[in-house]
Amino acid sequence: MDNRAIGVFDSGLGGLTVIREMGSLMPRENAVYFGDTARVPYGSQSKATIIEFSHQIMRFLLRHDVKGVIIACGTASSNALEEMRASYDLPIIGVVEPGARAALRATKNGRIGVLGTAATIRSGAFERLLLKEDPSLEVTSQACPLFVPLVEEGWFSDEVTREVIRRYIKPLKENQVDTVILGCTHYPLLRPLIQKEMGENVTLINVSEAATREMKEFLGQHDMEADHAAGTYDFYASDSIDQFRSFSRQILDITNLTVSKVSIEK
Amino acid sequence: MDNRAIGVFDSGLGGLTVIREMGSLMPRENAVYFGDTARVPYGSQSKATIIEFSHQIMRFLLRHDVKGVIIACGTASSNALEEMRASYDLPIIGVVEPGARAALRATKNGRIGVLGTAATIRSGAFERLLLKEDPSLEVTSQACPLFVPLVEEGWFSDEVTREVIRRYIKPLKENQVDTVILGCTHYPLLRPLIQKEMGENVTLINVSEAATREMKEFLGQHDMEADHAAGTYDFYASDSIDQFRSFSRQILDITNLTVSKVSIEK
Repeated sequence: MDNRAIGVFDSGLGGLTVIREMGSLMPRENAVYFGDTARVPYGSQSKATIIEFSHQIMRFLLRHDVKGVIIACGTASSNALEEMRASYDLPIIGVVEPGARAALRATKNGRIGVLGTAATIRSGAFERLLLKEDPSLEVTSQACPLFVPLVEEGWFSDEVTREVIRRYIKPLKENQVDTVILGCTHYPLLRPLIQKEMGENVTLINVSEAATREMKEFLGQHDMEADHAAGTYDFYASDSIDQFRSFSRQILDITNLTVSKVSIEK
Repeated sequence: MDNRAIGVFDSGLGGLTVIREMGSLMPRENAVYFGDTARVPYGSQSKATIIEFSHQIMRFLLRHDVKGVIIACGTASSNALEEMRASYDLPIIGVVEPGARAALRATKNGRIGVLGTAATIRSGAFERLLLKEDPSLEVTSQACPLFVPLVEEGWFSDEVTREVIRRYIKPLKENQVDTVILGCTHYPLLRPLIQKEMGENVTLINVSEAATREMKEFLGQHDMEADHAAGTYDFYASDSIDQFRSFSRQILDITNLTVSKVSIEK
């Protein structure tokens, strides 16, 4: 038993979908969330900068005595995960590996689609992991630069969003994928619309859920689960507290959510 | 007479609309364009970082012997213009001041709308300049986070884009603005659709055109105009040469456009 919190960080607010998954998959766990809203998005930063930012946030989370960390940001997961694992002695889980593993388990016809930000698709991280496990897979990747701004506008069930989804998934449908990785922590909020447009027979992989499941498994295997009556969450952001509050109200069913602004560089 | 080129820089590709304006307003001028595509967008960077990036690019442009510089990026114009003017002895023109001045000249009813990126609207730069000149103005500002990704997708005349425009301009129409500043160098590409939705009686201010006009005026007043038979353009980018080429083909009527990739930090 270990009643310390789980640290969750993201370049912005998308990682709140991990908190949502924690609420349903491990409701007894506390969490400390850090959203680097002053420096979002990380996609335009160099690898060295992303590693530096990740170190700053890891040190912040460790000062809050976390027992493990979920890097709920595709860009930080692809660029800084190895370095963080080498530097800190606690379990650190990104979103890319769990997402790829879940897709490998789910696919029956070996045709997997990946939807992601331009930076994630350009990095080829999901595709590389998938093909490393099984070179016979057919992977169709599609960058969806409009998805994050659509989610941040709150247009979750909207005709504009529906039409944008139709265009982005066209190559995935043409290649008859049976599994789609929603490769960005913002995308679970578009899941109902994407599922409807892809069809009910296609499995959508929510990377936030996949990462949370792997953390849950790890904690169970190492007898590190918490036994709080109900988990509590502390939220921190480096900027834009108001945007954080309004966005998180849409994702999480939490009233009176408190967010603290912190200068992470110090 | 001065046959040296004009330097134009942007965090990305939107500044190519300045090159397009140069082609029609001062066709005898050469240009050196730098798009910092490796580090776009600047909106998430600190002021100190934006100043540092701008210094790097100014030094690059000066090595190409430019006679003046247009900062074709709203974020760099708002954050680094003063510093650049203080550091380099040549005319430097941003997009915010010329845009605000053009709107002041155009409005008849004193009601001005500003469309911009989230970072530009948050900075309040246009609004501050407008109200400094005339505190009785009514300014309606609207952040349009979907516009840049829509332009970068090339969806210039598209039903999705039309619907997004309708939503963003709603407060401007409600406040009966007669002048709208298109406060980002990407937005001229949406001009036909925005004009149609705003109505023909509303004046749209293209900040790229306004900045190019001010440079033309300055060169004329100081006898610094070029007399090339036809201006030529050199394009440089810090990343994503392919995207640059395909995007610029959509903006500029140039075949065989050559782009060189440069490491700007050095």
